[in-house]
Amino acid sequence: MAKLSENQAKLFTDTNFAVVSTIRDDGGPQSTVVWVDYDGESVVFNTTTVRAKTQHLTEDPRISVLVWDADDPYRYVEIAGEAELDEKDAAEHMHGMSQKYTGEDWKNVENRVIVRVRPDRVYAHGVD
Amino acid sequence: MAKLSENQAKLFTDTNFAVVSTIRDDGGPQSTVVWVDYDGESVVFNTTTVRAKTQHLTEDPRISVLVWDADDPYRYVEIAGEAELDEKDAAEHMHGMSQKYTGEDWKNVENRVIVRVRPDRVYAHGVD
Repeated sequence: MAKLSENQAKLFTDTNFAVVSTIRDDGGPQSTVVWVDYDGESVVFNTTTVRAKTQHLTEDPRISVLVWDADDPYRYVEIAGEAELDEKDAAEHMHGMSQKYTGEDWKNVENRVIVRVRPDRVYAHGVD
Repeated sequence: MAKLSENQAKLFTDTNFAVVSTIRDDGGPQSTVVWVDYDGESVVFNTTTVRAKTQHLTEDPRISVLVWDADDPYRYVEIAGEAELDEKDAAEHMHGMSQKYTGEDWKNVENRVIVRVRPDRVYAHGVD
């Protein structure tokens, strides 16, 4: 397992956006933008059980999450690892993510799932 | 082949950043940030022959390129397709990309390669 430095972790805990890449059934990549966080051990985001990326992760848990500094996209961190899906308390978690990014609860928390990724590798660009 | 709308194409031709995702030897995803452009048919970026992503693409040309609006990351377009690598005039092309983003020629144009991706599929979020 790879450890994030304080500055690398801060990119995930600040209100930055991230691109999540998963592997489709045909083996090709798919990417989407997500809100993101870091709990000290895992990179964390929240999605729904009906999204394509969630379906991909149940077939192949390998994932890459790349977060960039909203004020300077030359500063970015990519982590890769295996995703763990967790539906427990996922609605409450989604409200928390929404509070972080918008200051308000989320509108619809049906079918939510928390995705946690412990970094197996870390690549940082412009972030010590 | 999928066609980009005018607004989708504009995200690639403006000075926005993109995340490129390729498939590693082990089948997992890798992502990096790149400068990007669109020539009316293909999404285009410039890298070097020694980068990991270039090595990946010679093994498996499948690629995803996600560009977001630097002023509003809720507006983004992901395209996926197969990458074509082209070393011809790649140094000159890199100077052009650097001029687009920085207003100056690039510092080192050794081993450059142009990557072109004709979109097989397009996913747009917040961009008509």
